[in-house]
Amino acid sequence: MKRRDILKGSLAAGALALLPKGGAQGAPQNVPSLGRRYRNLIVFVYDGFSWEDYAIAQAYARRRLGRALALERLLARYPNGLMNTYSLTSYVTESSAAGNAMSCGVKTVNGGLAVHADGTPLKPFFAAAKEMGKAVGLVTTTTVTHATPASFVVSNPDRNAEAQIAEQYLAFGAEVYLGGGDRFFNPERRQDKKDMYAAFAQAGYGVVKTPEELARSNASKLLGVFSDSHVPYEVDRRFQGLRVPSLKEMVQAALPRLAAHRNGFVLQVEAGRIDHSNHLNDPAATLWDVLAADEALEALTAFVDRNPDTLLLLAADHATGVGALYGTGRSYLESSVGIDLLEAQKASFEHMGRVLGTNPDAGQVKEAYRAMKGVALSDEEAQMVVEAITKRVYLPDAVRYSIQPANTMSWAMVQKNAQKPERPNIGWSSGQHTASPVMLALYGQGLRFLNLGLVDNTHVFRLMGEALGIRYQNPVMSEEEALEILKSRPVGMRHPEEVWA
Amino acid sequence: MKRRDILKGSLAAGALALLPKGGAQGAPQNVPSLGRRYRNLIVFVYDGFSWEDYAIAQAYARRRLGRALALERLLARYPNGLMNTYSLTSYVTESSAAGNAMSCGVKTVNGGLAVHADGTPLKPFFAAAKEMGKAVGLVTTTTVTHATPASFVVSNPDRNAEAQIAEQYLAFGAEVYLGGGDRFFNPERRQDKKDMYAAFAQAGYGVVKTPEELARSNASKLLGVFSDSHVPYEVDRRFQGLRVPSLKEMVQAALPRLAAHRNGFVLQVEAGRIDHSNHLNDPAATLWDVLAADEALEALTAFVDRNPDTLLLLAADHATGVGALYGTGRSYLESSVGIDLLEAQKASFEHMGRVLGTNPDAGQVKEAYRAMKGVALSDEEAQMVVEAITKRVYLPDAVRYSIQPANTMSWAMVQKNAQKPERPNIGWSSGQHTASPVMLALYGQGLRFLNLGLVDNTHVFRLMGEALGIRYQNPVMSEEEALEILKSRPVGMRHPEEVWA
Repeated sequence: MKRRDILKGSLAAGALALLPKGGAQGAPQNVPSLGRRYRNLIVFVYDGFSWEDYAIAQAYARRRLGRALALERLLARYPNGLMNTYSLTSYVTESSAAGNAMSCGVKTVNGGLAVHADGTPLKPFFAAAKEMGKAVGLVTTTTVTHATPASFVVSNPDRNAEAQIAEQYLAFGAEVYLGGGDRFFNPERRQDKKDMYAAFAQAGYGVVKTPEELARSNASKLLGVFSDSHVPYEVDRRFQGLRVPSLKEMVQAALPRLAAHRNGFVLQVEAGRIDHSNHLNDPAATLWDVLAADEALEALTAFVDRNPDTLLLLAADHATGVGALYGTGRSYLESSVGIDLLEAQKASFEHMGRVLGTNPDAGQVKEAYRAMKGVALSDEEAQMVVEAITKRVYLPDAVRYSIQPANTMSWAMVQKNAQKPERPNIGWSSGQHTASPVMLALYGQGLRFLNLGLVDNTHVFRLMGEALGIRYQNPVMSEEEALEILKSRPVGMRHPEEVWA
Repeated sequence: MKRRDILKGSLAAGALALLPKGGAQGAPQNVPSLGRRYRNLIVFVYDGFSWEDYAIAQAYARRRLGRALALERLLARYPNGLMNTYSLTSYVTESSAAGNAMSCGVKTVNGGLAVHADGTPLKPFFAAAKEMGKAVGLVTTTTVTHATPASFVVSNPDRNAEAQIAEQYLAFGAEVYLGGGDRFFNPERRQDKKDMYAAFAQAGYGVVKTPEELARSNASKLLGVFSDSHVPYEVDRRFQGLRVPSLKEMVQAALPRLAAHRNGFVLQVEAGRIDHSNHLNDPAATLWDVLAADEALEALTAFVDRNPDTLLLLAADHATGVGALYGTGRSYLESSVGIDLLEAQKASFEHMGRVLGTNPDAGQVKEAYRAMKGVALSDEEAQMVVEAITKRVYLPDAVRYSIQPANTMSWAMVQKNAQKPERPNIGWSSGQHTASPVMLALYGQGLRFLNLGLVDNTHVFRLMGEALGIRYQNPVMSEEEALEILKSRPVGMRHPEEVWA
């Protein structure tokens, strides 16, 4: 990367990165400003959250739970806008490039954490906040070392190098790390046999692995790792008895510890598995993870109400899957039935897959769908699931739906009654991330006349900087330069089928 | 409907209609206010327009046309928010209930125009505007008598009674009616053989049926009907030589006629076929109709710039289909290719279907896809299209995709290369309307500090009323009352498969 590129204003380059040279009439550069500072900053990322997910959760909360979402109340009353999410070279981002844009304020190539494609490291915003004395927390339902939290604190060319990222976390020294990912901390699971738990304990962290340990701990610094990989879905925690803390419980453990610090804090909370359930086309898992996020949101807004020197920023990093409640019945009059039918869904496909194992028969499949999804599969549909699990025979059009056999398990229970749905009338456009603009919203004092409009995701970096009075500029890479580098690297960065993007 | 219901405040009832009795914590009532009046009001409805449609058009404009959409510039710089669209009894609306909510300020049951399910008529906003002396115009790419324009001016229990609505239009006496629908005006096409063209001419309208007649006409009042049914898609007008005016040309014919009126005017412009192409899962037809809307938008914002006593309100009425550009290739690095591939798509499925006729062979099908969609179908895929057209054998999962054989024609060309798309990587969640919140935006003077947030679609009625200083209240029906009425009407309102919702 050349020096003059580094000196370029990143705002213009970020906004214009996808414009062809020459012909550009100039993309809008919308730079709404907070106009004031805050002591604390909380960034709540809804990973893979689409407006269709929002609509389904809003409807479910109103119709089945008798209340309005905290998110609905927030969107109605506080500044909110839309955010473009494309990465430096792709109109569809993955979570690391989306995280980088927010954390570093510049567009990057999909795949690395706080780094350009040529290896130039970027300084993540929470690293800058730590330098000025802020306490730092990361709370997520994914592995705690996953792309969205990691991109806010460390730089690594490979987002999938999570064992290494665990070591970077120790060196970084945030006050709170809560999420999943035992395999990256446990000496028996790590290839290098390092005991990261012992290392964190030695560095003064309370290390907790169960909801009870989390509740009991008096440690001021916390490492909480609650599952081998990602923290189980809320639907399984709630209805299948899986023993992990809820996102709200993790948030409630993080807040007092961070608030105890004299210089204030920065905290990223991630509802990280909305993305995963959307990749899998699992409507119940998505719904309940959005509802769990809503409970965490209530805890966060209550904290802001008590601590008005706190800014809460909500953002989706991209949409995934776009599972939409679609119209059904005459004049679409039966459409709401799909919301009611979700109530019978009491487990995720992930959990159902574990229960069914590697060699289920059609009877077991039917029973699992009946008990866990409230759906009576036909013989043919049950056989489709059996063949997906045992013979890797997947749904037609499987390119759009690459996470198997889960997407086929979803396809098998698609609703087939045009007059009145007996299964949720929810369909997916794919099992992948999409290009749509996503949620950006703010909650805090002094924001009444702020109009966010449509902004670029790099603008989150500027809003955060303005909130805390932190101003620096990461180096900018042009799209042309990035494409040139990608050309000379035929292997590219991996996007393994079993790893979530 | 009881008197006390009529007297209830519709705002509260509208916002709370879907809340169960008792348990409601109170839905947010977000009532942003303009704080000033305008002389003229233009309402631009994007029918069936999702945020995924927006993202694809934004990307295409930047990447292939070298410019930012007028809509992108507007969303970045002017107040915009999100709008809930559910109807009185259904979380998925159709266009008449969505139109009623905006035009009448109250939630209704899907299916009728400015009317409650018990037959209680509502006063549409443009009727009230006419009473106060405003000139009125309707410009659309659908039949001019279609639900979205019609719901702004007349009341009719059946949105599909378009021949009757044509008569209601004559009685209403708007200054400008431009769109499609010869079958509802032409004596040879109407069942009752009435010559509506002659009737309009007798009432002082210039009647035009071609782009040339539209350009030549000096009439101060205009009826323009440019096609048998809906006006052809922009992609077919532009690349297949179909002879109809563009939406921008219709807007440019309407504006000076309306602006000549002493008391100002109200105008609804509808980009009405974005909905249709999304029902059909036709990416090129959607893209070009959004781009045509963007050209019309430029003409409208230029008018507002010259006539600052004009408020321009943009709204989608609901999303349809949710055709999303989804991530593809390693780390999603190949995702933008789908945007480039759209450039080869030069006709809609509607046009291709006309060209193929009722008995095509596989060779003809392949040639049509090659020439019009830039796609090389396999033998198997071509055969799938042949069987859809000739034998009504449709795609699997056809319940979600009810407009056949078009949805199967779309399914046949779905992209099948997981590494690098050779067909646009765009997928649909269904061929139906969906529940997501949609675009609401404003353009005009004095709006800088207006924060719209998330509002209900009934709030459009209040914004329009505030803009023109018109205040009245239509009767409110409760959801319970509506459900009771629907129960006793087993036939319901029709939603014929061949009629667009």
